[in-house]
Amino acid sequence: MKAGPLQLGVAPPANRGIAILDFFLRLIAIIGTLASAIAMATTNQTLPFFSQFVRFRAKFNDLPSFTFFVVASSIVSAYLILSLAISILHIVKAHAVNSRILLLFLDTAAMGLLMAGSAAATAIVQLAHNGNNKVNWFSICQQYNDFCKRVSGSLIGSYAGVVMLIILILLSGVALSRR
Amino acid sequence: MKAGPLQLGVAPPANRGIAILDFFLRLIAIIGTLASAIAMATTNQTLPFFSQFVRFRAKFNDLPSFTFFVVASSIVSAYLILSLAISILHIVKAHAVNSRILLLFLDTAAMGLLMAGSAAATAIVQLAHNGNNKVNWFSICQQYNDFCKRVSGSLIGSYAGVVMLIILILLSGVALSRR
Repeated sequence: MKAGPLQLGVAPPANRGIAILDFFLRLIAIIGTLASAIAMATTNQTLPFFSQFVRFRAKFNDLPSFTFFVVASSIVSAYLILSLAISILHIVKAHAVNSRILLLFLDTAAMGLLMAGSAAATAIVQLAHNGNNKVNWFSICQQYNDFCKRVSGSLIGSYAGVVMLIILILLSGVALSRR
Repeated sequence: MKAGPLQLGVAPPANRGIAILDFFLRLIAIIGTLASAIAMATTNQTLPFFSQFVRFRAKFNDLPSFTFFVVASSIVSAYLILSLAISILHIVKAHAVNSRILLLFLDTAAMGLLMAGSAAATAIVQLAHNGNNKVNWFSICQQYNDFCKRVSGSLIGSYAGVVMLIILILLSGVALSRR
């Protein structure tokens, strides 16, 4: 097989470098998604006043989009932890192809799921902050200030996870082209 | 270069088949995303009653998430139309590598953007249908029934686009492994 002018550079040992980078990027993505899943899942705020019948308490599962966010980022965290095994396999076996294609597909699906969870939660956080007077949905962040802050903060980790997964997909492509 | 046991099958002309499939999947994705962008952007409903000061009218840009959805799916549609040129190049030049990696990266970014727009819009559609009595956001679909139906329907096309893009990313990986 001749190296054409469009080829990136073909020394297979370079794949070991990519595999090691892949492993560390996965670790960063795990920390980001796991932290944001935990931060969202443990968020609740009880207001200091209450009526006879009702305590004012906000929890993440009051809003279905936040529940979806917690489920999605938990699934992606679990997948990323399991995928470390294949990542280590790639450090040892630089020529593996089928397992790289499998990982490319699963990374893409995981990125889609994590992005869907993050975007749905962001849409609701935006509404909680600003409300929408066209349809009479009021901001809840004046009352549930701490709840809103924590919920907004927990999105950062999952967006970091999305960025890591995009880089991982790109690295898989480069590694596949260099066998 | 010897074909190892992990390799999928190596005849380069097979890449032409993948490139042709790639082209047609892109066409389907363009139809889906473009249709849903247009369907969402042209949605509006004016209620048959009005007070002295206010006409009750719902448009997509009353809700920021719907605006984001229209912008995101328009950008992805435009990108997919432009990417047809590279897709045709791949049918002609089955061995291209760098342009495949570029397309893999851009497809991944486009998939993330489209998924973010769709998920944000879905979160708001869900709220419009069901409301949320924990935070006093009321359903608006009883009044704006046609608006809600059309908005919900327009999401289908963009999710079809997401699925097409995931398959395109997988095909890129397979094509890269088979040079």
